[in-house]
Amino acid sequence: MTYYHSYLGLDELLSAQHPLSSAHEEMLFIITHQTHELWFKQILHELESAKNILAQHILPDQQLLLLHSRLRRITEIQKVLIAQIRVLETMTPMEFLDFRDHLNPASGFQSMQFRLVENTLGLTRDTRIKYKKAHYCQFLTQEHQSIVNQAELEPNIHQLVDQWLARLPILVYKDFDFWKQYQHSVNQLLIQEEKSIRIAQLNETELQERLQSVQNSRDSFRTIFEENIYNEHLAHGKRRLSYQAWKAALFINLYRDTPAFQMPFQILSLLVDIDELLTSWRVSHSLMVHRMLGLKSGTGGSSGYEYLKATATYHKCFPDLFNISEYLIPKSFLPSLPKGAALSLTTMDS
Amino acid sequence: MTYYHSYLGLDELLSAQHPLSSAHEEMLFIITHQTHELWFKQILHELESAKNILAQHILPDQQLLLLHSRLRRITEIQKVLIAQIRVLETMTPMEFLDFRDHLNPASGFQSMQFRLVENTLGLTRDTRIKYKKAHYCQFLTQEHQSIVNQAELEPNIHQLVDQWLARLPILVYKDFDFWKQYQHSVNQLLIQEEKSIRIAQLNETELQERLQSVQNSRDSFRTIFEENIYNEHLAHGKRRLSYQAWKAALFINLYRDTPAFQMPFQILSLLVDIDELLTSWRVSHSLMVHRMLGLKSGTGGSSGYEYLKATATYHKCFPDLFNISEYLIPKSFLPSLPKGAALSLTTMDS
Amino acid sequence: MTYYHSYLGLDELLSAQHPLSSAHEEMLFIITHQTHELWFKQILHELESAKNILAQHILPDQQLLLLHSRLRRITEIQKVLIAQIRVLETMTPMEFLDFRDHLNPASGFQSMQFRLVENTLGLTRDTRIKYKKAHYCQFLTQEHQSIVNQAELEPNIHQLVDQWLARLPILVYKDFDFWKQYQHSVNQLLIQEEKSIRIAQLNETELQERLQSVQNSRDSFRTIFEENIYNEHLAHGKRRLSYQAWKAALFINLYRDTPAFQMPFQILSLLVDIDELLTSWRVSHSLMVHRMLGLKSGTGGSSGYEYLKATATYHKCFPDLFNISEYLIPKSFLPSLPKGAALSLTTMDS
Amino acid sequence: MTYYHSYLGLDELLSAQHPLSSAHEEMLFIITHQTHELWFKQILHELESAKNILAQHILPDQQLLLLHSRLRRITEIQKVLIAQIRVLETMTPMEFLDFRDHLNPASGFQSMQFRLVENTLGLTRDTRIKYKKAHYCQFLTQEHQSIVNQAELEPNIHQLVDQWLARLPILVYKDFDFWKQYQHSVNQLLIQEEKSIRIAQLNETELQERLQSVQNSRDSFRTIFEENIYNEHLAHGKRRLSYQAWKAALFINLYRDTPAFQMPFQILSLLVDIDELLTSWRVSHSLMVHRMLGLKSGTGGSSGYEYLKATATYHKCFPDLFNISEYLIPKSFLPSLPKGAALSLTTMDS
Repeated sequence: MTYYHSYLGLDELLSAQHPLSSAHEEMLFIITHQTHELWFKQILHELESAKNILAQHILPDQQLLLLHSRLRRITEIQKVLIAQIRVLETMTPMEFLDFRDHLNPASGFQSMQFRLVENTLGLTRDTRIKYKKAHYCQFLTQEHQSIVNQAELEPNIHQLVDQWLARLPILVYKDFDFWKQYQHSVNQLLIQEEKSIRIAQLNETELQERLQSVQNSRDSFRTIFEENIYNEHLAHGKRRLSYQAWKAALFINLYRDTPAFQMPFQILSLLVDIDELLTSWRVSHSLMVHRMLGLKSGTGGSSGYEYLKATATYHKCFPDLFNISEYLIPKSFLPSLPKGAALSLTTMDS
Repeated sequence: MTYYHSYLGLDELLSAQHPLSSAHEEMLFIITHQTHELWFKQILHELESAKNILAQHILPDQQLLLLHSRLRRITEIQKVLIAQIRVLETMTPMEFLDFRDHLNPASGFQSMQFRLVENTLGLTRDTRIKYKKAHYCQFLTQEHQSIVNQAELEPNIHQLVDQWLARLPILVYKDFDFWKQYQHSVNQLLIQEEKSIRIAQLNETELQERLQSVQNSRDSFRTIFEENIYNEHLAHGKRRLSYQAWKAALFINLYRDTPAFQMPFQILSLLVDIDELLTSWRVSHSLMVHRMLGLKSGTGGSSGYEYLKATATYHKCFPDLFNISEYLIPKSFLPSLPKGAALSLTTMDS
Repeated sequence: MTYYHSYLGLDELLSAQHPLSSAHEEMLFIITHQTHELWFKQILHELESAKNILAQHILPDQQLLLLHSRLRRITEIQKVLIAQIRVLETMTPMEFLDFRDHLNPASGFQSMQFRLVENTLGLTRDTRIKYKKAHYCQFLTQEHQSIVNQAELEPNIHQLVDQWLARLPILVYKDFDFWKQYQHSVNQLLIQEEKSIRIAQLNETELQERLQSVQNSRDSFRTIFEENIYNEHLAHGKRRLSYQAWKAALFINLYRDTPAFQMPFQILSLLVDIDELLTSWRVSHSLMVHRMLGLKSGTGGSSGYEYLKATATYHKCFPDLFNISEYLIPKSFLPSLPKGAALSLTTMDS
Repeated sequence: MTYYHSYLGLDELLSAQHPLSSAHEEMLFIITHQTHELWFKQILHELESAKNILAQHILPDQQLLLLHSRLRRITEIQKVLIAQIRVLETMTPMEFLDFRDHLNPASGFQSMQFRLVENTLGLTRDTRIKYKKAHYCQFLTQEHQSIVNQAELEPNIHQLVDQWLARLPILVYKDFDFWKQYQHSVNQLLIQEEKSIRIAQLNETELQERLQSVQNSRDSFRTIFEENIYNEHLAHGKRRLSYQAWKAALFINLYRDTPAFQMPFQILSLLVDIDELLTSWRVSHSLMVHRMLGLKSGTGGSSGYEYLKATATYHKCFPDLFNISEYLIPKSFLPSLPKGAALSLTTMDS
């Protein structure tokens, strides 16, 4: 007979709070962090499952819904984590001072699970902001270092998504070559835009500005039309997805209405959601730290708040998916898929 | 040197998940309940502190802010708990079926901490809905029964608030007798209302309806004007606060602008907030259960969902505070406090 | 050249606030209701589109994602509406008293758009709770009455979903007859349950209780196995979906993993979400009214709060979808679909 | 007889949606912006009232609760605005493309009310980020320009709070001189910190690092101890509050438990809340724009997203209040107020 209390391990759980002071608010500090860590465990549980699904060489449609449900659950957890921060903010900075010194030098910076979440999503070592000029690992114990290092070596979600996308053989069907058609459409679009600018009765300044804007677009499109430019950008970290994968992501975004792409599109959207919510959490977290500690600077010269704010700005997991809307074109310019193509897609990967 | 991981007891915490099946979703089920229990622990921590503050025979103003901050924190936690339920709802009923049988007969019904929260707030044994014709205690182990029983014996928040309110000697000052003046104002108000109805050109049906409405108000006010009626209602559970306390609560609501009553008013408002959020949580919880299990009825004939829905409707902790607005009167009819009275109030209880 | 201010009709919008008093809080009261009404308009916009999609005799897969996105948007709006109520609660009952009398007898009860939302979802006249013994229409102007009456006559979402479900010819394929197989599985399940009870060493009371519980399940399943019982329940309002539609809904829930049913399952889930969020909104709304007005009873004898609380309990739009989990069975007992069946489903309705 | 529909101006409100295309999602775009603008109007309504309260030369305690309730309401509205953004995100970038061109060049950048909110809070022209090298006013019509310019000239919340704080004569009482005592305490604290570092057995690197950290603190405290340094920082925009006001804000934060400072402390906290929520909204908004448009750059070279992200980072209204926790000291070091002082404070400003 299962009993609620023992099933949930409540004896262990409810005796795992070890305040170092007698300050009333320390309990809140502990519990808020503990619930964060429990949810991180859950996120990792979902990410592991997502990795396993994505790692299948042939990803049957049936598995896409599963993947979708894993990712969506992560977003719901993230919303709770953001909401939780407001609870900790009911503690005033003065109350925090009552026990802050006991914590020294412990900090959320040492959360191994949070690093695992970042690493599993695909944040790479070289894109990370440094704190006090040091790599995050140096603040962890040997044991934890080896765990997060291991996670850095394993294929992460970003890589697996890249491979999944790169595998989708979606771009040519009989005499329909999506990529050629798309380039053609973009060019038509830009030509038309330029024409309508020249026709409009603008003063010289406006005219030059608007034409410059079209030129900017043209330059931007070149960076995806020419594979060598793309790959150069890739090498410099301006892109993260491989060329094949990037094109597939664009294709899915453009043809999201097609039944075969509805679920892939929802999955790409969820990856952007996760990235966005992670950023929102980072911002809320950094504001809370700012409020609690001011700009108190560490020995390395940068304050905790400034470090956290920087991660909110720069630590993106799926920047290419975020930026893709720049390359979408209106439906009226979109090459229509040949009937057979749409059909062939459904069975392609299953 | 404090280390984040050990400070938070993460070894204990993150190994306290013991799934009974290999179903992927069981982890979510466990973690959601565990985070609930951690937050319950935090709520109990705040409630204990609130009880200690309220138990002081003389409650200095300085302590009111503290009490306020304890209660407000509880409301912020409750908002997180409500939000958390949506995470569990990402599990489908079919997924729940995968491990549901292993849990039998464990149920959230057996959460000792939740009972402690209810008991500490002041939910009494005789106002509780029964489940399967049995008292909630019967579903707990002996050890847990004795803990919740003990909590029922200790003074709860409702009682302590009652005593604090009853102690406020706020109602008479020189020749100003609040209670007399208030009754007078109410009568004036009702007379004026009746007059304006009789003047208005209404058809007979409307006239009778509107007059009946005034009569209803008059009857309602009688139940608070006459102490013996009030006490009769109290004996039958229609009121929960003692007469003195009830009048003080009304007074505070009426004169919330007066500096001395700003903080007491905020405290009473927070008690209503807590009650309201508890109800919202119960509703969200019962809807989630409904969705997971349907109306599956237990052996006692009532389903879990129906029981939970009933508690959402009937388990109120501070019904009198909720109902008090019925007895508020417009500022224009409100007797103005003599200058000295307002001043004397500030120092009265400190 | 489009200008933000004029595009959004802000001159009209921002001059549509006409307070009847000089009370500061009346503006909040107006704006909160106005934003509600704007969102109601948006919900109706999505519901109209959903109706058009569902009304297509042959519903291509392509349209399912569209339907899904319409319904999901409604749920996101509902979450905002629930959150909005907390803003209005920053007004105290005393502040409300400052202008309450000017509003008489206007009430949210007279929101035509809210009635349209209810009617379009499928709340029927005969399942509505009465207020002051009167039908809701009687509180509206002639013009608005005719609009909501018209909406009652048009096919609503519930009916259209019923027709869509009833059309799904999903239940028989070659010698596989889902309905027969499912009944067989349920019987096996119940027999096994009974056996395991008889084997377990229980005392007489427990034994009888557990056996009774199995019997309850058996009775419950009979109400769906036997069409005439089902239809009788339908006639008495205990069911709302036609027998065919109900079986299809069950089928979709059971086989949600099958690619062809992933989107239909998500759509059914969203309908339950909408119903659940509507209930949550009703509860939050009724608690807010309770807080503002107490139990002040109207001329008809029932208070506004009690009426609203009753609607939260009884006004369900898709009760059958909510209850369906009662009839789900574990995967291990689930008849597996013949390969061809799964495939044939994909193209059946498109 | 007031009728709900006409009272709320619903004829005007619900006919103020003028889509320029037939795209389904344009309605969502309009309604989301319209509800934003309605809430902006409400925020301005509260800010006006807050300004009037703060502008009183003598601010009685009674008015502080009122001010508190105005500010708290603004925070609740801000939470709704943040939540609303998720509704707009249910529109996909492709759906936005369907009508995006019709809007050109209108943009949220032209929201006059949002500028009024910023200006009324106290965002100054010289601290604003420029967009396309131009001042925000240049994107508005003449009429709207003159309205926002006018708002820049009027006293804003930041200035009024500064004046209110500067007026509090709270720092000297008989031989108790808070500012002297506080400086003394800080010095003691830093000396003790240094001592404990020298005693601890640290390696040379650590020792130097930790000593440097104390030195950093010492330097930071100097910037507030020496009025001329403070004023220099003020002149360079590193501080925004006048020296007197800044010290009063610190004092209130340190002695928030004292009854006389409970309400002022809550008010300062709410100003930080408002600033924090405004930043959160800006972040959510910029992420949404990023998602919809990618990094599409305008003619001036910077994309809308990059501009919005920059405002989220730099547009702070009350930076000094945010940073103040850096200068808090533990209770054990806090000079205790002489009894008379605490008492004299209560009546000082009333």
